[in-house]
Amino acid sequence: MARVYNFSAGPAALPEEVLRQAQGEMLDWHGSGMSVMEMSHRGKEFMSIATEAEVDLRELMGIPDNYKVLFLQGGASSQFAMIPMNLIGRTGEADYLRTGSWSKKAIAEARRFGEITVSVDSEQDGKFTSAPSADGFSVSAEAAYVHYTPNETIEGVEFPYIPDTGEVPLVADMSSTILSRPLDVSRYGLIYAGAQKNIGPAGLTIVIVRDDLIGGPLDGTPAMFNYATHADAGSMYNTPPTYGWYLAGMVFKWLKAKGGLAGMSEINQRKAAKLYDAIDASSFYANPVATACRSWMNVPFTLADASLDAEFLRQAGEAGLKTLKGHRSVGGMRASIYNAMPESGVDALVEFMIEFERKHG
Amino acid sequence: MARVYNFSAGPAALPEEVLRQAQGEMLDWHGSGMSVMEMSHRGKEFMSIATEAEVDLRELMGIPDNYKVLFLQGGASSQFAMIPMNLIGRTGEADYLRTGSWSKKAIAEARRFGEITVSVDSEQDGKFTSAPSADGFSVSAEAAYVHYTPNETIEGVEFPYIPDTGEVPLVADMSSTILSRPLDVSRYGLIYAGAQKNIGPAGLTIVIVRDDLIGGPLDGTPAMFNYATHADAGSMYNTPPTYGWYLAGMVFKWLKAKGGLAGMSEINQRKAAKLYDAIDASSFYANPVATACRSWMNVPFTLADASLDAEFLRQAGEAGLKTLKGHRSVGGMRASIYNAMPESGVDALVEFMIEFERKHG
Repeated sequence: MARVYNFSAGPAALPEEVLRQAQGEMLDWHGSGMSVMEMSHRGKEFMSIATEAEVDLRELMGIPDNYKVLFLQGGASSQFAMIPMNLIGRTGEADYLRTGSWSKKAIAEARRFGEITVSVDSEQDGKFTSAPSADGFSVSAEAAYVHYTPNETIEGVEFPYIPDTGEVPLVADMSSTILSRPLDVSRYGLIYAGAQKNIGPAGLTIVIVRDDLIGGPLDGTPAMFNYATHADAGSMYNTPPTYGWYLAGMVFKWLKAKGGLAGMSEINQRKAAKLYDAIDASSFYANPVATACRSWMNVPFTLADASLDAEFLRQAGEAGLKTLKGHRSVGGMRASIYNAMPESGVDALVEFMIEFERKHG
Repeated sequence: MARVYNFSAGPAALPEEVLRQAQGEMLDWHGSGMSVMEMSHRGKEFMSIATEAEVDLRELMGIPDNYKVLFLQGGASSQFAMIPMNLIGRTGEADYLRTGSWSKKAIAEARRFGEITVSVDSEQDGKFTSAPSADGFSVSAEAAYVHYTPNETIEGVEFPYIPDTGEVPLVADMSSTILSRPLDVSRYGLIYAGAQKNIGPAGLTIVIVRDDLIGGPLDGTPAMFNYATHADAGSMYNTPPTYGWYLAGMVFKWLKAKGGLAGMSEINQRKAAKLYDAIDASSFYANPVATACRSWMNVPFTLADASLDAEFLRQAGEAGLKTLKGHRSVGGMRASIYNAMPESGVDALVEFMIEFERKHG
């Protein structure tokens, strides 16, 4: 058995230590005689797992007491509807920053539920290669909230700052950047993230929401799409995705052991720098994103000769460097280097790229 | 390490063989060098897992070609809203059979979306202890569908027949009875089930829906709550709960090896008969459900002296018989004996019950 370096954008690599622990506990968690996935979610064993995961996440991110942490299902795509259904009622309007593929999807879904203003659109010639400048957009007078996507997973474009929206709650899709570095949660009204990139397995979605934003859903909002339902029930209104919650908890412990988010931030910044440096050092490879807006997590790159793409992917796969194909809308390659990608994986990729250029450049 | 007999109503015991296989493959699925939970849902490895699971489920249940099988998130509680949001539009009305705790929840949620007629209510003196007779209710002229709960998990009440609703689509919450015996799927318009009882881990929901019922959602239905979204995308509109899907697939293989649903039906009927016989043979134990409506899957029972409940649970736990506490709304005990509960577990419980009565009766 040889583990590969898996550069998938999501579901993505998990820390090997976490998988080994899950493997060891698969048939018997801590002498309970049960797998975690067999436990009643209301039993004391699972309640201890659930509580500890939340405590650890709160500690890692420094989440203030006036924020609820919800462990939900349905992915970011469900949040695209839940956010307007719960937050837009105050005025019926919201602002969205259009900066890439995922913010486009968020906008399309939000339009079902209210009047959406696209307060800035960074698309140019059909491409998204930079975030707007911090003073490049304003907040509408009637906006109930402002939504943005701090890291666009497909384009590899990241905001190098937190937008200042004054008193208007800021809502962020952090699916591909949560836990990658320290964050001032108090700057946000709501943060959400599908787990399958930097938290745990697919099927778990984490929502961090300020108390005062809960409780005013639109008419016709399903109970399961009402934040109050889940906040009031400690995310146990119905059976939560227990195994994903457990795995996320182990990832949080792993992060704490790595020095928390400050520790991860150093490693992530170094990993990204190594890869962008390798791309920039050669005319054989290119990344189109404005330097200040380059993602630490998702690094798309193209070969000068696109006819070599298939060969690049084939040889990379043989070298144990997997899932490097870029999204079809961008082309080329994409290396997603989330927390669980060890620095040795980036080193191996850079080495492979140099060698591939030597042979084919 | 000693595995216990876990009588949890859900999340519930899984076949030990399935857990062992998952354990073995945790860090490397079939030489891929990845855990299944690390795989891109669009990669060829996971696509093969997903397809095979659907093929096996279709074979097990004999699902006709004009039905879609959807692998979703959100549990039965999400279906309580999705069903009316997708199916009620034709007339704005639907019939619901009120036969226990879960059908009550389905009714409460459906009322947000249309006019709901409770066509029969089997509650008597605050309790649900039987299903209505087959001719005990009619179908409203304007019903877009009829919803019922073939097996009420909390009360242990089961329909001994499939309601005849003529041309009006029949919708069934089969969370706690799916895969327990052969079923004529063509009698239904839509079948749904949370996975965490008889399919796999929590966080996966299976919907089997006839083609002609897809595509007419109410205005304001979120994309993620529209069956068409998922049917058109092969349940991959967004990232599905990949690990649950994989585990469900292994459970389907396990069922096929056990002789399919006909084989399981024999075992399940025998398990249930043993337990009900033990209860009926003694005045120390009692089950309140009408004999013809007793569930094969969830067996609630009370002690004649409720002050012994805590002692019963304590001693049972020491004997490795876990999660037997009844739901607070019913009291006493509940033994859930889904497919994954081996007959030896029922034998051990019956033996324990006889011995407990001998000591305390």
